[in-house]
Amino acid sequence: MNLEEAGTPCAFVDLDVLESNADRAAQKAHRLGVRLRPHVKTHKCVEAARIQVRGHFGGITVSTLAEAHAFAAAGFRDITYAVPFPLGRIQEAADLAQSVDALNLLLDNEATLAGLEAYGRARGVRFPVFLKVDCGYHRAGVDPERPESLELGVLLARSPHLVFKGVLTHAGQAYACTGREEALEIACRERDAVVRFAEKLRAEGVPVGEVSVGSTPTFSAVDDLEGATEARPGNYIFYDAFQAAIGSCSAGDLGFGVLATVIGHYPWRNGLLIDAGALALSKDPGPVHVRPDCGFGLCFSADGRRALPELRITGLSQEHGHVTGTVPLDYSRYPVGGKLRILPNHSCLAAALYDRYLVVKGQRVVDEWRPVRGW
Amino acid sequence: MNLEEAGTPCAFVDLDVLESNADRAAQKAHRLGVRLRPHVKTHKCVEAARIQVRGHFGGITVSTLAEAHAFAAAGFRDITYAVPFPLGRIQEAADLAQSVDALNLLLDNEATLAGLEAYGRARGVRFPVFLKVDCGYHRAGVDPERPESLELGVLLARSPHLVFKGVLTHAGQAYACTGREEALEIACRERDAVVRFAEKLRAEGVPVGEVSVGSTPTFSAVDDLEGATEARPGNYIFYDAFQAAIGSCSAGDLGFGVLATVIGHYPWRNGLLIDAGALALSKDPGPVHVRPDCGFGLCFSADGRRALPELRITGLSQEHGHVTGTVPLDYSRYPVGGKLRILPNHSCLAAALYDRYLVVKGQRVVDEWRPVRGW
Repeated sequence: MNLEEAGTPCAFVDLDVLESNADRAAQKAHRLGVRLRPHVKTHKCVEAARIQVRGHFGGITVSTLAEAHAFAAAGFRDITYAVPFPLGRIQEAADLAQSVDALNLLLDNEATLAGLEAYGRARGVRFPVFLKVDCGYHRAGVDPERPESLELGVLLARSPHLVFKGVLTHAGQAYACTGREEALEIACRERDAVVRFAEKLRAEGVPVGEVSVGSTPTFSAVDDLEGATEARPGNYIFYDAFQAAIGSCSAGDLGFGVLATVIGHYPWRNGLLIDAGALALSKDPGPVHVRPDCGFGLCFSADGRRALPELRITGLSQEHGHVTGTVPLDYSRYPVGGKLRILPNHSCLAAALYDRYLVVKGQRVVDEWRPVRGW
Repeated sequence: MNLEEAGTPCAFVDLDVLESNADRAAQKAHRLGVRLRPHVKTHKCVEAARIQVRGHFGGITVSTLAEAHAFAAAGFRDITYAVPFPLGRIQEAADLAQSVDALNLLLDNEATLAGLEAYGRARGVRFPVFLKVDCGYHRAGVDPERPESLELGVLLARSPHLVFKGVLTHAGQAYACTGREEALEIACRERDAVVRFAEKLRAEGVPVGEVSVGSTPTFSAVDDLEGATEARPGNYIFYDAFQAAIGSCSAGDLGFGVLATVIGHYPWRNGLLIDAGALALSKDPGPVHVRPDCGFGLCFSADGRRALPELRITGLSQEHGHVTGTVPLDYSRYPVGGKLRILPNHSCLAAALYDRYLVVKGQRVVDEWRPVRGW
């Protein structure tokens, strides 16, 4: 079957693009002297993760314990659960840890350290644990400039009930950058913040194994990761309209899309309606800081060959996508019943809305992948 | 089990609230002299729809063919698929139509009319079809002021291959209103637009059976539906933070929520982190036109008894919810590992992210419902 024949809305991934994105990242990690531990939250499926780890050690990063379970079952042996660990799920994590070489957890506060230690003391389980460091995103992580952050690191490293794995950061603030130069500056700050914090810990006599960095914008821009040991980008396997707008990739690198059908013509207001709404594209507002009129994704012809910049997705309700022409539309190019490809703003959030992705090579559907759902 | 013991993030619905919301709507529809054909897209599950149709004729409205399939299989016999019909799915719709009394379709353009007629002529299938009328939302529907709209209605009504069901509108623009008075004005315009259009068709000699209106804000505000025959609100079964902000309901009417765990404390920036991010709450920006600082939902204590207006969900990444205090926070009230209830901005979009809802009565989990997924 060709993709154009699929029912809509449906999600698709372009296998050649994914492989090329993965190869480039794998090679870059080698060039920079770091191990690649790709994040799999963008696609949540085993087949894509297998492409991502090619040429590296096989470790991955996950965003949910549900992902950890599924990837462990598929043979992944070294998994970092990169969200500050929710203690309520400790028994589940301990059970899962028995089936892999390492289920690495994150913490950034004393309460979680105390909980993990108490569990470890009682049950004889020694979780490998990263200290999460805030390099300026201000989402999670200890502030590397505060003395108590160093104290927490020392406490963690010296705990007999845990294995101190190292320090880890994520420069999510890079998503607010306007282009590659700015992303490079943030990448340097990301690296420097965590490398310097590792040095401070070492100055306290604490050996620090891993120094882990990573976000797609910073990994795409960075040219030197001296002092870091691993990188954890994830979105780069698909990229998306957002990443293209801030310069992380070029237009041809976008590997995830949604096929939609035109279901209405409203020439009196220069509008179209498509059957891909908020539940097909997600309401991520996109790179409005660099493209205020970006709408909810990029439109292409059904075969993907022709960009249709004259179509702007100006609104999403649950199952309707409202498209407005930026020039007077020639409706014969988008007949009712005809199809379009949409490349959403944020591929991670859009992909998570689907139970399956059609895998295409060129126009042909060659496979179907099923992402992990839930938590 | 009590809800507080559930793993997080998880979705829950409050059965007493749902029943009370449903009763009120059912009674109001009787009082206004219209049949209630509730939209089920908000919850997509059979159990909630059965509560919604109590005391009415049993007809429902759906937003996807997947919903139509699932509800037909569960015994619902009269289903309106309230999105302009995508012709590519006509065979599927025809097959499904055989298992129910009526699968009512919508159209607003000649191409779809021609496609449905051609199919009907060839296969002897006569779909019941509504003409969708635009009452000012400008998402879908014919413009009731344009002569070609009347012509389309006459063509549809006279087609020997289709059953003209009537006219239908949806005042989605009511979501932009700032309060109940404005919602009432829009409700009157919604009703008047479609009732007048029905009159115009009748003046052409066309009998118009159904005159269908409905959105939750307009149905909540309206006090007279003279000329209309049915109403199709949907969100009212759950309501949400958005509906409360624009006055469709009161705070106690919110029946859908997400239980989340506190996973980080950042007192140096007066922040908290919860394990409910964009995939647990949706990135719907909420009622920013009336509450610019609404954040991504309303926070409550884990038992739901105490509103926590001092917590504002200021950002969502995939699996992290960033919470900021509006006053200096007393962290002992939200310990790491403690739980919170979040009532999201837009219950339809948040609910669609889950594979199941825990059904609670008071604190107790009494059931589990599984929504329909996909298209």
